[in-house]
Amino acid sequence: MTIEAGGAELRQARIRLGMVGGGEGAFIGAVHRMAARLDDHYELIAGALSSTPEKSMRSGAALGLDRIYPDYRAMAIGEAARGDAIEAVAIVTPNDSHAAIAEAFLEAGIHVICDKPVATRRSDAERLQALAARKQRIFAVTHNYSGYPMVRHARRMIADGALGMLRVVQVEYAQDWLTEPLEQTGQKQADWRTDPARAGAGGCIGDIGTHAYHLAHYVTGALPDALCAELSTFVTGRRLDDDVQVMLRYANGARGLLWASQVAPGNENGLRLRVYGSLGGIEWQQEEPNHLRWTPFGQPTQIIGRGTAAANADAARVSRIPSGHPEGYLEGFATVYSEIAQAIRAARSGTPVDAAVDFPTIEDGIAGLAFIEAAVASSGAGGTWVALR
Amino acid sequence: MTIEAGGAELRQARIRLGMVGGGEGAFIGAVHRMAARLDDHYELIAGALSSTPEKSMRSGAALGLDRIYPDYRAMAIGEAARGDAIEAVAIVTPNDSHAAIAEAFLEAGIHVICDKPVATRRSDAERLQALAARKQRIFAVTHNYSGYPMVRHARRMIADGALGMLRVVQVEYAQDWLTEPLEQTGQKQADWRTDPARAGAGGCIGDIGTHAYHLAHYVTGALPDALCAELSTFVTGRRLDDDVQVMLRYANGARGLLWASQVAPGNENGLRLRVYGSLGGIEWQQEEPNHLRWTPFGQPTQIIGRGTAAANADAARVSRIPSGHPEGYLEGFATVYSEIAQAIRAARSGTPVDAAVDFPTIEDGIAGLAFIEAAVASSGAGGTWVALR
Amino acid sequence: MTIEAGGAELRQARIRLGMVGGGEGAFIGAVHRMAARLDDHYELIAGALSSTPEKSMRSGAALGLDRIYPDYRAMAIGEAARGDAIEAVAIVTPNDSHAAIAEAFLEAGIHVICDKPVATRRSDAERLQALAARKQRIFAVTHNYSGYPMVRHARRMIADGALGMLRVVQVEYAQDWLTEPLEQTGQKQADWRTDPARAGAGGCIGDIGTHAYHLAHYVTGALPDALCAELSTFVTGRRLDDDVQVMLRYANGARGLLWASQVAPGNENGLRLRVYGSLGGIEWQQEEPNHLRWTPFGQPTQIIGRGTAAANADAARVSRIPSGHPEGYLEGFATVYSEIAQAIRAARSGTPVDAAVDFPTIEDGIAGLAFIEAAVASSGAGGTWVALR
Amino acid sequence: MTIEAGGAELRQARIRLGMVGGGEGAFIGAVHRMAARLDDHYELIAGALSSTPEKSMRSGAALGLDRIYPDYRAMAIGEAARGDAIEAVAIVTPNDSHAAIAEAFLEAGIHVICDKPVATRRSDAERLQALAARKQRIFAVTHNYSGYPMVRHARRMIADGALGMLRVVQVEYAQDWLTEPLEQTGQKQADWRTDPARAGAGGCIGDIGTHAYHLAHYVTGALPDALCAELSTFVTGRRLDDDVQVMLRYANGARGLLWASQVAPGNENGLRLRVYGSLGGIEWQQEEPNHLRWTPFGQPTQIIGRGTAAANADAARVSRIPSGHPEGYLEGFATVYSEIAQAIRAARSGTPVDAAVDFPTIEDGIAGLAFIEAAVASSGAGGTWVALR
Repeated sequence: MTIEAGGAELRQARIRLGMVGGGEGAFIGAVHRMAARLDDHYELIAGALSSTPEKSMRSGAALGLDRIYPDYRAMAIGEAARGDAIEAVAIVTPNDSHAAIAEAFLEAGIHVICDKPVATRRSDAERLQALAARKQRIFAVTHNYSGYPMVRHARRMIADGALGMLRVVQVEYAQDWLTEPLEQTGQKQADWRTDPARAGAGGCIGDIGTHAYHLAHYVTGALPDALCAELSTFVTGRRLDDDVQVMLRYANGARGLLWASQVAPGNENGLRLRVYGSLGGIEWQQEEPNHLRWTPFGQPTQIIGRGTAAANADAARVSRIPSGHPEGYLEGFATVYSEIAQAIRAARSGTPVDAAVDFPTIEDGIAGLAFIEAAVASSGAGGTWVALR
Repeated sequence: MTIEAGGAELRQARIRLGMVGGGEGAFIGAVHRMAARLDDHYELIAGALSSTPEKSMRSGAALGLDRIYPDYRAMAIGEAARGDAIEAVAIVTPNDSHAAIAEAFLEAGIHVICDKPVATRRSDAERLQALAARKQRIFAVTHNYSGYPMVRHARRMIADGALGMLRVVQVEYAQDWLTEPLEQTGQKQADWRTDPARAGAGGCIGDIGTHAYHLAHYVTGALPDALCAELSTFVTGRRLDDDVQVMLRYANGARGLLWASQVAPGNENGLRLRVYGSLGGIEWQQEEPNHLRWTPFGQPTQIIGRGTAAANADAARVSRIPSGHPEGYLEGFATVYSEIAQAIRAARSGTPVDAAVDFPTIEDGIAGLAFIEAAVASSGAGGTWVALR
Repeated sequence: MTIEAGGAELRQARIRLGMVGGGEGAFIGAVHRMAARLDDHYELIAGALSSTPEKSMRSGAALGLDRIYPDYRAMAIGEAARGDAIEAVAIVTPNDSHAAIAEAFLEAGIHVICDKPVATRRSDAERLQALAARKQRIFAVTHNYSGYPMVRHARRMIADGALGMLRVVQVEYAQDWLTEPLEQTGQKQADWRTDPARAGAGGCIGDIGTHAYHLAHYVTGALPDALCAELSTFVTGRRLDDDVQVMLRYANGARGLLWASQVAPGNENGLRLRVYGSLGGIEWQQEEPNHLRWTPFGQPTQIIGRGTAAANADAARVSRIPSGHPEGYLEGFATVYSEIAQAIRAARSGTPVDAAVDFPTIEDGIAGLAFIEAAVASSGAGGTWVALR
Repeated sequence: MTIEAGGAELRQARIRLGMVGGGEGAFIGAVHRMAARLDDHYELIAGALSSTPEKSMRSGAALGLDRIYPDYRAMAIGEAARGDAIEAVAIVTPNDSHAAIAEAFLEAGIHVICDKPVATRRSDAERLQALAARKQRIFAVTHNYSGYPMVRHARRMIADGALGMLRVVQVEYAQDWLTEPLEQTGQKQADWRTDPARAGAGGCIGDIGTHAYHLAHYVTGALPDALCAELSTFVTGRRLDDDVQVMLRYANGARGLLWASQVAPGNENGLRLRVYGSLGGIEWQQEEPNHLRWTPFGQPTQIIGRGTAAANADAARVSRIPSGHPEGYLEGFATVYSEIAQAIRAARSGTPVDAAVDFPTIEDGIAGLAFIEAAVASSGAGGTWVALR
């Protein structure tokens, strides 16, 4: 055991947090709550957790919330009227409701922590961006994979030029849970994710393709100029894509491939990024997140471990425990929450945010929607090249 | 995302928790706090976090504790006198102080959650066992590796006979952080762990060998009858062993090998267990904890993933998030805390503990000390066979 | 050690083999010779090994050949005139000379074993196809990766329907040896492979992209109808592509992605195939060729080992040694040679070839050239979709 | 493809080779033949391949041998009488016959290439050692794992001090093929290997334990002074050990553990070596032989690939093909044969053997028998320490 300090812990009063969505039968709400709790920066006190008042009450009571609301509108209004209002709201509902909920809370002067995608249309997201700017509120988006320490390590390496000129980006996100028509069984997660009315125009591409796209952007610092996409629906009766292939062109001549699938048996949550430049290459896999493979061209591949002396400061800053003691998905998610907490506290006190603080925002949400829209357009046109800006 | 429910969450009032040790410069205290927090069963309200009153005050204030004590004795007495006393205390000090602290809190009627080893002598541990029994208090020991879901899966497989007759147990725990005389640099973790006065008679064997021994016991359900050990100290000037080899004999003819080392470069926290029986074999590694390899003899090896349909009920019971979303060290540690929480709540209400609840106790602590004492005796006698009972 | 029989061994007189190319400084010629030797079906007796008569003589003498020719034309004529002429010729020269050499030996009535690609233009390959048919000679192409036992296993699984309806094909072939302008150093392998005059219109796509394309075809049994490609040249001054991305459309709605690169640091010879269908998925990697990952949907991934009871008859037929004793690249290559030997012996005796015999032929070579030509056309047109038939 | 040269090829007349054993139903004989053939240094011309004259004739004819003998005695005498006698004999019979056969051929002045163990008693091996010395003939033993390039790399690293002072040696060799009483089915390999009359006093320890012991010796350059062993027989009715655990003490204070098992389900041919010193650690696994893991203490683990620039000269000297093109078991075995060929050629011409030539000899065979005898003695005495010299 060689690391002295644990994660960031409470030094100021905890942030008052509310939640919309995340009641009975939800998955991601519980993740957000654990993530918010891990480093002890938040206290969950209010919520409108389900789509009906009865379920909201029941879910809120089960969690021991102080203030339970029948719906998000009542919550935004109710909280805005209090002296001890929540400072931030976590939005963990199906995609189609994100924008309206976010708008209500921004209008109420409350910071927003929104699951991705932030909206089902890019134009809605841009409206939210303007609103957040006008209200001077934080709009964070939980592209949680950016919270993994070795992702931070890779981002810093590339920013520092360790890979030289970027050439090739290979990113993939493969799952298998929709190999069969699970939505026809009534399974809640599958149901809304394959329903255009609730998920938006993208199925697989929206659910996980955007995570892959964000990860590539986050690590390389680069967004492509154009794409060519094939969206496929392999399961009979499914209403949205369940597999997507995208070729990407970057401004400097670099090229990328993005593959996302929810019908690839043998893949649990196979998010994997490889980046190659003129001086070397890196590889990272979400299912083994504590190590990054780094190959300086012409030398042996190195396995860089989280928590080791070889992990850089950006990785060390968001590590909690020593090397070899694996941190996982919840820790990465918690890091996003803890980064946001620092920004909220800075906003509280009117001080600048520490320059190292780093979390995805509405701008990332907009980029994700631009990606979805371009890919849907490209695929709809038979796989043509579509500009991304 | 296919799993509906997150981890166990608050349904009753949280358990009032205190902590002894874990102040400035500590590692394991922060781990205990995150573990206690993750599933929201505990509220840390009191502590005596450091070895001097000044540091205790400073550390307690930094954590925002309600009640800060200058030392554990004052804390045990002070809490015992209150109506809202802490219900449990987490003991995260160096080994030599565990027994006295545990005794004080048991005497005060407070449940104990103690880092391993529970004492530096088996006789002390047996005294604590008797005391806990007399006071009817829980005495939990944080052999945290028992909290990993796929360890639970393996344990159940063996209990159900999937491996047939046990034949061979291979367990190892390799680290490299003491390859050089780190203790001579003043590094706090290395300092006390290599000091017989604070660590006890075992160095590597006590610090990590006992974890390996417990894991093998936990998964197989079997304790050996006899051992033959070689304890080595490779670093000049070091006062305790930094590498240990042990051959184990089990009652039914099965054989085991245990290797633990803190001087094996390239190993971060390499706890690994392999168990072979007449019908098949399993393999699990702590650094990739979400998968278990299982080979029914004559068939292909299967990779059983946490959170998948193939994971059994014992694993599913302690999983929080879907397959492919890695759970790590803190989650496993948190499971131990959450299991203990169920026992404490049952004690609160005078109801029986759910039969599925499963966490290491003082009995495991005694077995660990018996192991250390036998190994030290064996090695001291030149590597002879020593009975374990 | 559980397998009784070694590889196929000599039961009839060995096949008289000649070689064109493969002299000093060559790589692949030595590979062909070892492959021909391993199972003892061939005897190398004649050759024109280099591009100049002097080097041919020197190289032939070094190998102890009986008959050394100054060039391939002299060799084809000289051998044709003998009663004990070579029965087959291995062509291992740079790409641009394959067609003319093959033509000369076919005209001489000698079977051809040609390194890929068989020509630099599809039309030339089609001419060779007609010529081989007319002369009733075998025209084998050494797409050697088809010789790996677990590739055979996968092919059989898919043919038998184990994966259900094919949906997604992911194939990649990544190397890093051309990350820098190695051709400018005079390195022989890099020199001709990056020269359009000798390599043909494709660089990376011809050198390794065609192997990936063939492997996907071989295992799935399916050829795509159309493709959309991006060929990139990342190294300044290079005259051919060094990275290629291709999207593939199959007739039944299945989709594929092919990525090949010679500028991806950290990749030695990373040929990897993943195929997903409605019932399950498989994964195979050339660098760990003795195991195939197979996941029946909803069940754990299985690791199927070459030489084990779980390996099917197609794999067992071409395995030489027990499981766990790794067979590698040369063994796979040797299998192609040994399969060809069976066809040559059948031709010798005028008997039908055993139905199980399976090796790549001129038809595969034509498919490969069609792929190159379509990809070059697609990329040249800015990444448009191009039909493959 | 970056390596210019293939394996060593014929530059002088091939060595005339004979074989005893290796007829119908044998495994290792075919391996020896492929190994002898790969680099084209040998020509197999004579043999006494089976235990009965009829089977010998049939087996020899199937292989197309020039000279077939009814038994090894006739062969030794017959060959000795010829001007074109075989120069070397490969002995691939069950263990109990090795010594007598080797003796006969040494007396005939023929070099011996003997499968391990060279005898069933150390005293017999020592007699052979003396005989070989007197006759000035080579006595090679096919501890083939020493032929892997990355094993050579590791050996050189340690010899050069890269690991510093040796501390810990962990070697294991796990298989599962004897998990059930296979010998009772009449399977030939299992039959003699579990028969003390033919295999000698050791079962698993002799069959594979000696390979592990030799590998550790070969790589570290060190032999232990003493051992403490537990030999177990888990399968009912089996007459020899099928699992063995050994603790090893080296002169300089280093410690070793050796585990070999043939009843460990999930292990195909799991030979694995880890060596740790004061400056770093290495790990190598036979089933993934083309890469060596090397960790300089305090730095990231490096993956050193065969055929790469990072592979040292000792590895490069015995590599045939470029990195990423896996070499396997047969290539390693062939390297042993090719090394022996160099020694035989030097003996032919009366010139000194190149200093780099390196293959196991009768001395290694004696060390292996000393190991078996000590382990059997230790285990028989209840697991006591036994000196190895």
